[in-house]
Amino acid sequence: MNEKDYMKMAIELSKKSVASGGGPFGAVIVKDGKVIATGHNCVTQHHDPTAHAEVSAIREACQKTGDFKLEGCQIYSSCEPCPMCLSAIYWAGIEKIYFANTREDAKNIGFDDSFIYDQIPLQPSKRSIPSEEIMRNEAQQAFRMWEDKDDKVEY
Amino acid sequence: MNEKDYMKMAIELSKKSVASGGGPFGAVIVKDGKVIATGHNCVTQHHDPTAHAEVSAIREACQKTGDFKLEGCQIYSSCEPCPMCLSAIYWAGIEKIYFANTREDAKNIGFDDSFIYDQIPLQPSKRSIPSEEIMRNEAQQAFRMWEDKDDKVEY
Repeated sequence: MNEKDYMKMAIELSKKSVASGGGPFGAVIVKDGKVIATGHNCVTQHHDPTAHAEVSAIREACQKTGDFKLEGCQIYSSCEPCPMCLSAIYWAGIEKIYFANTREDAKNIGFDDSFIYDQIPLQPSKRSIPSEEIMRNEAQQAFRMWEDKDDKVEY
Repeated sequence: MNEKDYMKMAIELSKKSVASGGGPFGAVIVKDGKVIATGHNCVTQHHDPTAHAEVSAIREACQKTGDFKLEGCQIYSSCEPCPMCLSAIYWAGIEKIYFANTREDAKNIGFDDSFIYDQIPLQPSKRSIPSEEIMRNEAQQAFRMWEDKDDKVEY
């Protein structure tokens, strides 16, 4: 299988997802030339706003490999990852992203990907969701505990 | 209970999380003055790079309310949400964010929040994880199916 075969699989997942009542998004994770996990958007079906295709595929891949990192893996997504999924890809340490539809395509059919991309870089005070910093001093205690812990598992 | 009480709860969760082997992060979701869900970072314990405190709390709140939106809810996080969690907060429609530690505090103890904030706004070609657009035309089919579907559940 090559890049087009993996993407074809992600696109098929996106079409099946629409047919079964989910959002029009599919994703496939590949390691060493083998598909190790797939996902499709099931936000409304699973009552989970984080259940995008890429996040679902990442979770499945990590369950299968028993690791919280996906080094040496590629992700094929039928649409450019939204900032949530892109950040999850960073946290997972995936090495390359292939995508088909763009964030503008997603915007044109009513999804907020592009809007959220615009919001993330703003200063918190400029964003549409207000945020407020409180009790930073108290919260530092947990960070000091983390620093002082000898047997911590870093990630 | 007031804002400080909810944040105190999130901070306590972050400290308990370190003690039990997780990352130093806790979150609480409040609706109509009641705590409806809590979360702590369990990335390494659950083998799930998306299991940040905020994402975990959002998932739990949605399971409890049976909805994929959390309108009228506030989130209290012991640390400024990373871009993944911030985006999840947008997708969930949470109305206000309270945070304690900042992204710089997280950076100073070894977490990539600040780095990912810097990556998200970049053009894909400038990011540390390469990405490539392929087969956009083929992928459009799923978007057309979505547009044409009369009984779709929008989100």
